[in-house]
Amino acid sequence: MSVIYDKVAFIGLGLIASSMFWAGQRAGVVGHATGFARTQQTRTTARDIGLCDDIRDTLIETVLDADLIVLAVPVGAMKAVAQQIAPHLKSGCTVTDVGSVKREVIDAVAPYLPETVHFVPGHPLAGTEHSGPEAGFATLFDNRWCLLVPNGAASDAVERLGRYWRALGANVDMMDADHHDRVLAVTSHCPHLIAYTMVGVADDLRRVTDSEVIKYSAAGFRDFTRIAASDPTMWRDVFLSNKDATLEILGRFTEELFALQRAIRTGDGDHLHDYFSRTRAIRRGIIDAGQDTEAPDFGRRKD
Amino acid sequence: MSVIYDKVAFIGLGLIASSMFWAGQRAGVVGHATGFARTQQTRTTARDIGLCDDIRDTLIETVLDADLIVLAVPVGAMKAVAQQIAPHLKSGCTVTDVGSVKREVIDAVAPYLPETVHFVPGHPLAGTEHSGPEAGFATLFDNRWCLLVPNGAASDAVERLGRYWRALGANVDMMDADHHDRVLAVTSHCPHLIAYTMVGVADDLRRVTDSEVIKYSAAGFRDFTRIAASDPTMWRDVFLSNKDATLEILGRFTEELFALQRAIRTGDGDHLHDYFSRTRAIRRGIIDAGQDTEAPDFGRRKD
Repeated sequence: MSVIYDKVAFIGLGLIASSMFWAGQRAGVVGHATGFARTQQTRTTARDIGLCDDIRDTLIETVLDADLIVLAVPVGAMKAVAQQIAPHLKSGCTVTDVGSVKREVIDAVAPYLPETVHFVPGHPLAGTEHSGPEAGFATLFDNRWCLLVPNGAASDAVERLGRYWRALGANVDMMDADHHDRVLAVTSHCPHLIAYTMVGVADDLRRVTDSEVIKYSAAGFRDFTRIAASDPTMWRDVFLSNKDATLEILGRFTEELFALQRAIRTGDGDHLHDYFSRTRAIRRGIIDAGQDTEAPDFGRRKD
Repeated sequence: MSVIYDKVAFIGLGLIASSMFWAGQRAGVVGHATGFARTQQTRTTARDIGLCDDIRDTLIETVLDADLIVLAVPVGAMKAVAQQIAPHLKSGCTVTDVGSVKREVIDAVAPYLPETVHFVPGHPLAGTEHSGPEAGFATLFDNRWCLLVPNGAASDAVERLGRYWRALGANVDMMDADHHDRVLAVTSHCPHLIAYTMVGVADDLRRVTDSEVIKYSAAGFRDFTRIAASDPTMWRDVFLSNKDATLEILGRFTEELFALQRAIRTGDGDHLHDYFSRTRAIRRGIIDAGQDTEAPDFGRRKD
């Protein structure tokens, strides 16, 4: 493939940015990549594993002359980064991000960017339970969705960023920021909060020991712990910055959970059976949509 | 391996019983296997795919002369089966089950079995989202736990059943019935109910379309749908028969969820971060205990 951006600058070198770098190398669509991380330790690790062509020690050096700047820091850190880099951005460059919420990122970043810069927020729907520069791998985005929020940016800048993400392996869709935040509250943010909660409950119990919880963790709980092992800082910022949509969905969740609890308490088996039958259809839809495998044992590798 | 039971009878031919049959074939530890299912359709399917040496049309024919009878029907059906087979059991045989709760199974089955029969309840901690006779496979129990509840049975009968489960690939532990039900409420039953609830909420939403929920389902929700696709009848019976432990844990869960909701509403980022950091440790313990893989992308196969 031919180069899409001559120079890409990654701000923040966690799972997503490092995977973007490796996927860009695989595709050959980036001329030169610079990277910056807040801590010396992360920068040293990044250099050690050959992440980016150059790891710089300051934000400003990192973004100079960049055609694409990727903000890959927690949502709560976006504003400070935007303020610092804004005066040093090349005219005509594109700024994007990979945050899990979009409205708050726009509010934090857009006011500081000059008119000459294209700001196109983005969100790749991909991740693992691991974080940090060593967690990245080139295939993370393959056949996953990347949602872009055009937000009034020039259409050629949006199109170019879409081409870049497709080269990294992703499918690209456009979405309005508020709608994005609502969809993600349902499909990702609330499930994560709930998984965190259930794992926390298990950790607290005195009549069931920790070692039993771990030793006998069956499919349900094991899946929850995997979800609940994601990066704490990132998720704190997600919930604080997508507060309204998250609380709305949690309200609905609590309502439904209480109805099921009541059915258990009163022995209403029909209510339970009907509810459990309905949820199977959604699962079928997800497999048909190619978003997951049907492999036995939940598709986990045996090795 | 040498034969452990000359004749095994499987009552109910779903995922677990069919996997037990194939695992027994792999190990060569069963002389002859008979099977029974309630519906003609399941019996026909079982015959078509070569499940068991003989599929019988009545319960009584199936258990005659059996050395081990495996009750693999939903918990709510155990009592009726026990009543029907009790007069036809061979003296000295062992009856076991594979139900997800143990106290209610004991209450439903034990009163009907003659003194000459060893009753050793069991619970293999293994499953997939699929059900029915065609869902079974020989490796389902490999390196999974099977919990046996000795419940006062003769130690040689318990030991023999343990040997059989180990031959099927499982690790075997002994546990008291009530403690079992409490551990499973935490590690399996409540996580399933919560996953069902979240998937139900998504299905209900009007401002986020079903197709969006499916198309953009990220890791969190996708894992929930996998859990929530399990057999509705089995899960209805699990909740109705492990009512007290489930409701206790759900009460704890709701309490913690409300605390996290409040932290989101009030913007208490420290509370969220501390909570999310703590849950990582449990995940680490599960990986160290060999109950899951650390593979990227949650260990899902790419194919």
